[in-house]
Order: sequence, then structure tokens, then C-alpha cells
Amino acid sequence: MNRRELLRDVSIATAAASLVSSAQAQVPAAGINVLIAYYSVTGNTEKMAQGVAEGAKTVSGTSVVLKRVGEVTAEDLLSSDAVIIGSPVYFGNMAGEVKTFFDNWLLKFDFFREFKMRNKVGGAFATGGSISNGKEITMMAILEAMLINKMIITSAGGTFGFGASATTGPDSPGIDEKELAAARDLGKRVTEVAGVNKRGLAQVQ
Amino acid sequence: MNRRELLRDVSIATAAASLVSSAQAQVPAAGINVLIAYYSVTGNTEKMAQGVAEGAKTVSGTSVVLKRVGEVTAEDLLSSDAVIIGSPVYFGNMAGEVKTFFDNWLLKFDFFREFKMRNKVGGAFATGGSISNGKEITMMAILEAMLINKMIITSAGGTFGFGASATTGPDSPGIDEKELAAARDLGKRVTEVAGVNKRGLAQVQ
Amino acid sequence: MNRRELLRDVSIATAAASLVSSAQAQVPAAGINVLIAYYSVTGNTEKMAQGVAEGAKTVSGTSVVLKRVGEVTAEDLLSSDAVIIGSPVYFGNMAGEVKTFFDNWLLKFDFFREFKMRNKVGGAFATGGSISNGKEITMMAILEAMLINKMIITSAGGTFGFGASATTGPDSPGIDEKELAAARDLGKRVTEVAGVNKRGLAQVQ
Amino acid sequence: MNRRELLRDVSIATAAASLVSSAQAQVPAAGINVLIAYYSVTGNTEKMAQGVAEGAKTVSGTSVVLKRVGEVTAEDLLSSDAVIIGSPVYFGNMAGEVKTFFDNWLLKFDFFREFKMRNKVGGAFATGGSISNGKEITMMAILEAMLINKMIITSAGGTFGFGASATTGPDSPGIDEKELAAARDLGKRVTEVAGVNKRGLAQVQ
Repeated sequence: MNRRELLRDVSIATAAASLVSSAQAQVPAAGINVLIAYYSVTGNTEKMAQGVAEGAKTVSGTSVVLKRVGEVTAEDLLSSDAVIIGSPVYFGNMAGEVKTFFDNWLLKFDFFREFKMRNKVGGAFATGGSISNGKEITMMAILEAMLINKMIITSAGGTFGFGASATTGPDSPGIDEKELAAARDLGKRVTEVAGVNKRGLAQVQ
Repeated sequence: MNRRELLRDVSIATAAASLVSSAQAQVPAAGINVLIAYYSVTGNTEKMAQGVAEGAKTVSGTSVVLKRVGEVTAEDLLSSDAVIIGSPVYFGNMAGEVKTFFDNWLLKFDFFREFKMRNKVGGAFATGGSISNGKEITMMAILEAMLINKMIITSAGGTFGFGASATTGPDSPGIDEKELAAARDLGKRVTEVAGVNKRGLAQVQ
Repeated sequence: MNRRELLRDVSIATAAASLVSSAQAQVPAAGINVLIAYYSVTGNTEKMAQGVAEGAKTVSGTSVVLKRVGEVTAEDLLSSDAVIIGSPVYFGNMAGEVKTFFDNWLLKFDFFREFKMRNKVGGAFATGGSISNGKEITMMAILEAMLINKMIITSAGGTFGFGASATTGPDSPGIDEKELAAARDLGKRVTEVAGVNKRGLAQVQ
Repeated sequence: MNRRELLRDVSIATAAASLVSSAQAQVPAAGINVLIAYYSVTGNTEKMAQGVAEGAKTVSGTSVVLKRVGEVTAEDLLSSDAVIIGSPVYFGNMAGEVKTFFDNWLLKFDFFREFKMRNKVGGAFATGGSISNGKEITMMAILEAMLINKMIITSAGGTFGFGASATTGPDSPGIDEKELAAARDLGKRVTEVAGVNKRGLAQVQ
């Protein structure tokens, strides 16, 4: 590519890398509202949700709401700039409670008809007892529900291209530091993209 | 939700709705580069690609590169702000040629190591001979490859939550006007989101 | 391939084609128990379930239990040779009620620990408001849950490779004859494969 | 459930458990032909393929053909009773070479028109650099292609519900004993189900 494109590309990469430090300096009032919703029985998915929250908070001016899916209100969802949802894996997909939570975006909250979640940034995380038994499918199912609602989707990419996940069964009980780091990366990444998206939307008004 | 949040929400929705008209007025110089890459044997996927291009061009200041996946260069990809990829459905997933194109992002172009596609906005479209036989899976497989590359994913939402698709077999031969309209909606939506994302990134530099 | 293999291959195809007529003559007492479970609000998925039941009954010596997922008992599941499950598509995946039904295979029925559903033959069907908006993903999610339970999966193949599906929104309201025919094909196919599997299991005892 | 059903259920479970020992005694001539096809650059997927072959050979009277996808002939496929396919994960899905292999079932071998692969039993395995980055999606994509061809799908269930997989990146380089055991379980399971299916088909002729 030519020199100009190279510089452009590098500058974008730099911009992304320096979002945290620059965000506050640039747009002091641009608070980013992040909703992290999860379902958890054993506490594993809850621990991952806390990691996602820690990552989101590393982005200046971010306020985080951390709730179980059953406690999330329409206002929690509508007032958010980013929504990150997590579920344990049951039989290869999200728990029935999490699917029911999404169904309520239509049946209870009536968001779908007017695409009330449009342009919010979304991410997903999952915990499962074994390595390849539904964490990918679960994260993608969460992201698919978000896409249908006109949300904008992202992840930390690479090793965690679909979101953050943790193996919690006999092979690797509980949430280890590496898995928590992935949760933090997801929270930081989704919040940064939501910040960029929010600033961009403000520009075109 | 309180009045302030309501106004904020409405203004964002309005912003999104008025992106096209406002983009030129606000940021005359902000050209958005859209790459549309596809594989096509019968011409159906190519026709959808042209529809996606038409939609992208409705966004002021957009330049479109429309190419077959086999002809796409590293520079085509690196100089893009948005990448929209389409494939016919073969046995429930993207054609081998399209999968090989993605594999080349690693094997030939070496983009993956440094996440060179990071922060570009992505979308997908697919054509298939029958109604429920792989178009969804194909579009999601394209979006999954993009997520792993740290791209930001979107769609026109709703009826076309995974992207734009067309049924081309006996039940509905060729590409009809409704399917072309979906292709245009996808091109317009992905380009708008890329424009917002590009403006936002410029703000945080 | 050589003549012997050709004959073998042809004979298998013939066998499959003639399962219905031959089943009763061969093994008069070999009743095949088929459970068809579904969730339905509008009646569309229920109508598809009835089509699946009609198809299953075309196989001699088959008894069908047709129930809503909420009414299915552990005995309904354990006494079946084949299980075919259908769901409407909500936000790109099975309804929360259907996912909760699967979760109960673990939480309520405790089937998973000893793989109590092992070797039963499974199939899936789905109804959705639009063409490419989750019917494939929903059918695959149902089949994935079955695979994890060590079930054996099949479909009518071809146009309905993932199972039987119907588009029920504005473009194609309700269940048309073609969609009902797909439901019947699924019911017949899954029952035939279950019959073959049951006879095979009897041989190795 | 009643006593009769309980006994029936237990006997089926027992049958499945004792397939290996009983197969030869019962049907000495019933050779099961298993084709294991894979793509491998680093040797990891090849090592898993060898594990799958070892597992298949534990079933009496089984002959195994182990080949790279590029070397598989139409006769290899048509003369098989079971087909087990493996791929490394590239960007969240099977390698382009493996997808092209499937595409050839239509484009080169012309199997699809007459469902020449109908009633063969299929399974999948995958290797990927990281834990949750496409192994599930890859295995399901392989199984989906098989379903469209009217094949009958199975897996070892449970922890490996989608097939056998191995993590080969920094976290867990190469193929360890546990992953090889999963490959063997898959080979054994798919071969057993193919044996049951073959005996069942013979009964209904």
C-alpha cells in the first residue's frame, strides 16, 4: 500500500491503542454506559462477569451496571451504550434463562418493533464444563440475537474471537487468571468500540 | 427511563437515520472506502454484490471497490474502512474459494499476526438454492472469520439479521427485487456504521 | 467402484426406499416409538408437528406421541426410539421454553449423567417469520443438544438438510403444503432411520 | 416407565456397550468400511486422524482407509459405511482445502443429485490453536455438510458432543493423550453406530 495509507492505517491502530488515555482528555462529558448481564448458578459465570466489568472500567468515564439477566430492566438496556451478556453452557447453547431474557426484548420490553437496541455495541462471554462443548455456539447465539436487534458486534479477536470464555469442569475447575484476563479484555474492547461509536454518532448529528 | 435518556436515545436514532444526508454536510472530506468481495459461478451472488454496492454508494463520499475474492489484493483490504463479503452456499457453508480467500488473510497476506484488519466494519451476504439450507450458516461463518480478525460486525438487522440473502433455486430462481433491496440495505447499513466508526476513531486520535 | 460395491450400494438405497413396505412383513412386533415435542404460540409450529407425526405414521408399526415440550415426561423420552423437536424462531434461536426443556434433561430428568438418551434417533424442525433469520441456527441448536446426549441425528437431507422448516411471516403466512410435505418427509425419514437402528441394535444383543 | 420399557431400555444400553465384543460373534462377515479423511499442515490433525483410526479398528471386522482429503477418490467415499472428517481450524471454520473437498462431492463426484452418500454414518474432528476459537464451529460445519447429503450423524457425546478436538497452540502444544483418547472414542463410536446401521439395513432388505 502507499505511504499515505500506511500512515492512515497506523494512526487508526494507534488511536485504538490509546483510546483509554485519550478518551477523557478529548471528550470529558462522554460517559459510556455499559450493561453486563449474566446468569450463574455455580458463580463461575458471575466471576467472569466481574472480570468483564473490571475491563470496562479501565476505559475513562465508563459507568457499569452489572446484573443477573432476571433483574435487568428495560431502562437498563435502553440507557446502555454497550451490552455484554454471559451464560453458562447447557447442552451446547445458552441457558434457558438467558434465552428467555432475549425473548423478553420482544415479548416483555417490545424493543424489536422499533429496533430500540439499534447501534448499541454488543459482546458475549460463556463458561462451560469442557473445552469444546458449546462455548463457541453459546457466544455466537448471543451475538446473533444482538445482530437481529441491529446492534453492532465486536470481540477481543484472536484467541477469543467470539468473546471471552472459561472452562470450568474437571480439566480446569473454576475461573483461572488467564480466563479472567480474557474477560477483562472483552470488557475493555467492547467499551472502547462503544466509545468510538458514540463519538462518531455525535459527529453526524 | 427519564426524559434525558429518552432524548439521548431518540437523538441517536435520529442520527443514525440521518447519516446519509448529514455525512457530506458535516465531514466533506471523510471518504469511506468499501470493499465488496464475492464468489459467483451463476452470476446470482455477483448480482447481490452489485446491489450491496448500490446501497453503499447512497452514503455520501463513499468509494466502492467491487471484486471477485480471487482478485482481491492486500491493499484492497488494508485501504478499506468496510468489507462486505458474499458467497453462494455449497453444502451448508461458504464456497471453498471464499474460505480459501479468508485463509489467505493469514497464509498469504499475513494480516492476522498484527490484526491488520482491526476496527474495520464487516458484513456478509449469501445466495442459496433453497430457503433454509445454509445461507444463515454461511453468513455467520463469514462474520465469525471477521470477528477473529478484530473487525466490527453489523447487519441490516430484523429480517436480515445475519446479512442479505437470496434464494436462487426452483422455488425462487434468480435474484428478485426484494432480495436486491436487502442487498442495498446491507451495503447502506455497513457503510453508515463504518462512517460513524471512522469519525469516532478520528475523534480519539 | 467394482460391481459388488455397486450392488451393495444400490441394495442399501433400495432398502431405504422400501423400508415402509418391508418393515411390517419382516419384524411384525418391532413397533417404533416416536416422540414429537414442540412449542407453539400461533399454532404454526404445532401444525408442522402434526405434519411430522403424519410422516412418522406412514412407517408401519409406529406409535407417535405428540406433545408440547412443557408436557413431556421423562417416560415419554425414555420410551422413545426417535425424538423430533420443533420450535418457533425467537431472535435467531429456539424459544426459551424449548431451551429450558432441554436443560431439564439434565436439571429435572437427570438423563445426562448416564446418557439415558443414548442411541435414540433425533431430528428437528423450526418455523420463523422470515426466510433467513434463524431457522437453520434453531434446527442445528436442537441437533447439537441431541448430539451431546449421544443421540444419532438425521434429516431428510437436500433442501431440508437441517430438518423441516416453514416461513410464517408476511412473505409466506402460515404453513403451506410444501412446508407440510417437508414436515412429513422429516417424520418419515427419522422414523425409518430409527427403525433401522432399532433392528440393528437387536442384532448385536 | 413400566418394567417392560425399563428392560428394553437397559437392553439397548447394554447392546451398545457390548457392540465390540458381540459384533464378530454375531455377524462374522459384516465388515465395516471406515473412511477417515483429513487435512494437516503441522501434523496435528493427522495425529488425531490416526487416533480416530485406532478407535475404529477396535471394532471387530472393520477396515479403515486413512487419507488426506486431496487424495480421496469417489470410490473411497462410495465404498464406505462410515466417513469421519477432520480439519485444522482456520479463522473459525474448516480449512479451505476441506471445504473444497466437500464441494467436490457435488462439483467433481456428482454425489448430491442422487444422494449417493445417503445412510452412511458421519463424524467430525478438529484441531485449533486455542480453546474456543472455532473447533466447535468447524466440527458442526462438517456435520452440516454430511446432513445435507442424507448421512446419519453421531459423536462420542458428552464432553465431545460435536466430535473429537484438540487444542494445539501455546496453551497446549501438540496432541496430548487425553485428546488422542477422544479421537479413539470418536472412531469407535462412529464405527459402532455404522455397524448397527448396516445390520439394520440388512434386516429390512
